[in-house]
Amino acid sequence: MRQIEKYGIFELELENGDLTEKTVPSAFFSQGSDSVKINGFLKRKNAYAVRFMPQNEGVWKYEIEWRRKKIQGEFECTENTGKNHGTVMTDGFHFKYADGAKYIPVGTTCYAWIHQHDDLIEQTLTTLSDSPYNKIRMCIFPKSMQYNNNDPIFFPFHRKADGSWDMTSPDAEFWKRLDDYISKLADLGIEADLILFHPYDRWGFSGLPLSDCLTYLDYCINRFSSYRNVWWSLANEYDAVFSRRFEDWQEFGNKIMSCDPYRHPTSVHNIIRIFPRSVWMSHCSIQSGKTDQCSKWREEYGLPVIVDECGYEGNIQDNWGNLSAFEFLHRYWTAVVLGGYCSHGETYHRDDEVLWWAKGGKLYGESTERIRFLKDLLYGLPGHIDPKKSVLDVDPYNLPDSESIDNSSKGFVDYIRRYPVEDRNFFLSNVHVIGGNRDFTIHYLGRTCPSFYDVDMPHNGKYRIEIIDLWNMTRDVAVDSSSGTIKVRLPGREGISVLITRLSGEPL
Amino acid sequence: MRQIEKYGIFELELENGDLTEKTVPSAFFSQGSDSVKINGFLKRKNAYAVRFMPQNEGVWKYEIEWRRKKIQGEFECTENTGKNHGTVMTDGFHFKYADGAKYIPVGTTCYAWIHQHDDLIEQTLTTLSDSPYNKIRMCIFPKSMQYNNNDPIFFPFHRKADGSWDMTSPDAEFWKRLDDYISKLADLGIEADLILFHPYDRWGFSGLPLSDCLTYLDYCINRFSSYRNVWWSLANEYDAVFSRRFEDWQEFGNKIMSCDPYRHPTSVHNIIRIFPRSVWMSHCSIQSGKTDQCSKWREEYGLPVIVDECGYEGNIQDNWGNLSAFEFLHRYWTAVVLGGYCSHGETYHRDDEVLWWAKGGKLYGESTERIRFLKDLLYGLPGHIDPKKSVLDVDPYNLPDSESIDNSSKGFVDYIRRYPVEDRNFFLSNVHVIGGNRDFTIHYLGRTCPSFYDVDMPHNGKYRIEIIDLWNMTRDVAVDSSSGTIKVRLPGREGISVLITRLSGEPL
Repeated sequence: MRQIEKYGIFELELENGDLTEKTVPSAFFSQGSDSVKINGFLKRKNAYAVRFMPQNEGVWKYEIEWRRKKIQGEFECTENTGKNHGTVMTDGFHFKYADGAKYIPVGTTCYAWIHQHDDLIEQTLTTLSDSPYNKIRMCIFPKSMQYNNNDPIFFPFHRKADGSWDMTSPDAEFWKRLDDYISKLADLGIEADLILFHPYDRWGFSGLPLSDCLTYLDYCINRFSSYRNVWWSLANEYDAVFSRRFEDWQEFGNKIMSCDPYRHPTSVHNIIRIFPRSVWMSHCSIQSGKTDQCSKWREEYGLPVIVDECGYEGNIQDNWGNLSAFEFLHRYWTAVVLGGYCSHGETYHRDDEVLWWAKGGKLYGESTERIRFLKDLLYGLPGHIDPKKSVLDVDPYNLPDSESIDNSSKGFVDYIRRYPVEDRNFFLSNVHVIGGNRDFTIHYLGRTCPSFYDVDMPHNGKYRIEIIDLWNMTRDVAVDSSSGTIKVRLPGREGISVLITRLSGEPL
Repeated sequence: MRQIEKYGIFELELENGDLTEKTVPSAFFSQGSDSVKINGFLKRKNAYAVRFMPQNEGVWKYEIEWRRKKIQGEFECTENTGKNHGTVMTDGFHFKYADGAKYIPVGTTCYAWIHQHDDLIEQTLTTLSDSPYNKIRMCIFPKSMQYNNNDPIFFPFHRKADGSWDMTSPDAEFWKRLDDYISKLADLGIEADLILFHPYDRWGFSGLPLSDCLTYLDYCINRFSSYRNVWWSLANEYDAVFSRRFEDWQEFGNKIMSCDPYRHPTSVHNIIRIFPRSVWMSHCSIQSGKTDQCSKWREEYGLPVIVDECGYEGNIQDNWGNLSAFEFLHRYWTAVVLGGYCSHGETYHRDDEVLWWAKGGKLYGESTERIRFLKDLLYGLPGHIDPKKSVLDVDPYNLPDSESIDNSSKGFVDYIRRYPVEDRNFFLSNVHVIGGNRDFTIHYLGRTCPSFYDVDMPHNGKYRIEIIDLWNMTRDVAVDSSSGTIKVRLPGREGISVLITRLSGEPL
């Protein structure tokens, strides 16, 4: 019996002898009382295919009725191995793999890497394999903007006689290659965050009629949803695709929710207005430089927050693409310590116009190694980071009664109380961000440079204090086992964090 | 005949033979039809004094009637020399000396330097004499807060039997010393921005009865207004002096306006709420880290704007006092390029608690040399900096008609038009600031790191383009004489400015 690893792909190819017959096959896959209908897709001119990702071990049966023929069979789903942990799914404000393994999104962005020549694609994959990144944002349609002046090697569809795109006629070579790229990413443990639409276009893909969009979406879902490492991004900068109405995005999201049997992570990326919470949305995919809003967005959306674009490390003229590595990392750490996630991107000018953010190639920046350092730190922490409030982090518009608060914050609360309510936004500007859980607390001190820091720990327990330098990538134990309130010495530089870990006793 | 330099001090001392007689002498000074009444002050237990600053050359006559005696005399006012350019006054959104010489405020802050021991005071004056600073913010009353735990050497007044302060009994030694310090600052070309009240107190000065405050103000005005280099700062953090009502500050300001015959620069410094525009206010003295608001404050107040406290370069625990030198300079340049001014302060922790911001001493930071570099640049520019709008700096809430704008901004304006009005604040986030006048334009690129920059110059003229690096203190000519639109190469670092100077032809 054919054997397929759990979360692998079982594919059935069906030859298309009669090209005038356009019915797309679909199949029923079942295991005991568990049964699911899976739609096929036109794989090439003379063949359809049905793909299925089994999520339970054991024998699966399938059955297809197509063109008055009945095809039946079975295969065995075996244990998942190696880097295969299944599809990523949300877990509260965080993520995990289907098999329960830890997944912390540490993504990067190469919008048009699949549209470049083979050598460059090969180089991109090599760079990715050496990188810390485990998610990549990538467009299916080609991209047209500054530094993206080359035509793609293959288009996804053939044109009709009138020059418009024929969504019923996919270019087999394009999609075969894309299959291959997604597969290779899976082998590297990298999630493919597929961007379905975007506005940077000179070929007509951003202005497709709505019915063509739905045909295309169907095709993508039927072809790619069986890849365990696929995520759906409805759009990059949905609110800059001026041909689309707001309702269209809702329709696309609902279509994915109802047609994707595996519920891959699904979101949509904005230029200005963050898309409102919608039922099909698994997480927020945000463009904003204000990563200090992550805890607010978490509260507003009740979903995991990924700031997929907080600006790029680079030196191009556009201000979204000329952050210093430090500023980029500062935004990244701010997001992460506030219980969010952040994605990388790099835009160093090159005369050959091969910039990582668009075409892939090589990485030249200083942030990638420091993101690796942070990733290792995050994977080593006991659990996820959720935002914490500091002792002094009161709501200045709704002050607690003096009687109900402890002495350490009383003085500050009474101080705020002396100011008229309309002036109290002054007290909202937090430059330190704090996150953690019961087992650890991390204070990211941002651009402030204190040479001392007061650490408050419970009295009943033992706690370790470490000083972390995001730029120099050092992690030094300041106090190995202590409790109560301690003043620790800091290097007095930007980019310092204080990590307090519980060794025993009362939770943090 | 006695000779006094213009803007110098003519002083008459009057012995106080009868200590039960409390009438304070006042004198009339006249030159032709120009006549002014000047009030005296108790200089020491057995002597009053009247001080006058002549502002016109030639012979001045004076006349005093006091205790049934009439004193008359005259002196000659001679030309001002050396660093003596008279009192600073406002000049539109900027400042100048009374004799018309250029004055660009480049201030620093040493709140309690006059309250330290003599050696330290001497060291502070030496440091100042080697520094670029030409204004200093300093408190008259002693200061009590962290790093300010020592008692002052002298108090300004003697205590009454009940322990409260007797404002009619000044400590002659304290005031004689303060005279001397203000004099020495004048010799160094440094304006003494005298802070009259402040909240950091453990001796009772922040909670004086209103009548005592007015007595004290009278004393300060009558004693110090004849010093050409005095500025009046009603308070540091007026809105943290909780014993005072808003109306008290108005009363103090109006008193200074009516009693200071020389109209020294007068303002008041906030912690949170910037004091509203008032008739006695010559300029804004602002505490805020948001120096990118300078152009807005200029418009709102119609006055020169000095951000006297945007945070301090240092490494103490309080976040107002642990900015990196770069972040501090970034805020400083932002203020200056937007037509405002900024003041320095330094708070590096020292175990001996001698921090420049409070006690003076030595400077340890990295910003002072770079402020000197900027000061030299500013004094060398052809005229003052006023904020300029960039070509693309349209008001997104009130877009111009497409017909009324030139082609270079049309695309951007039409782009903004596609977004609902409520989303357009996105387009307000300028990270580049631009200032200048008809003869030069300076673009400060802040924390962005472009490696290229498009410079737009008129076609009819010759212009020089220079690249300025605020940290490395370099100023390099990129293009010596050109016109039209040019793309210049930049170092791709934070803290870069592009200066375009008109050599001939059409104004910028």
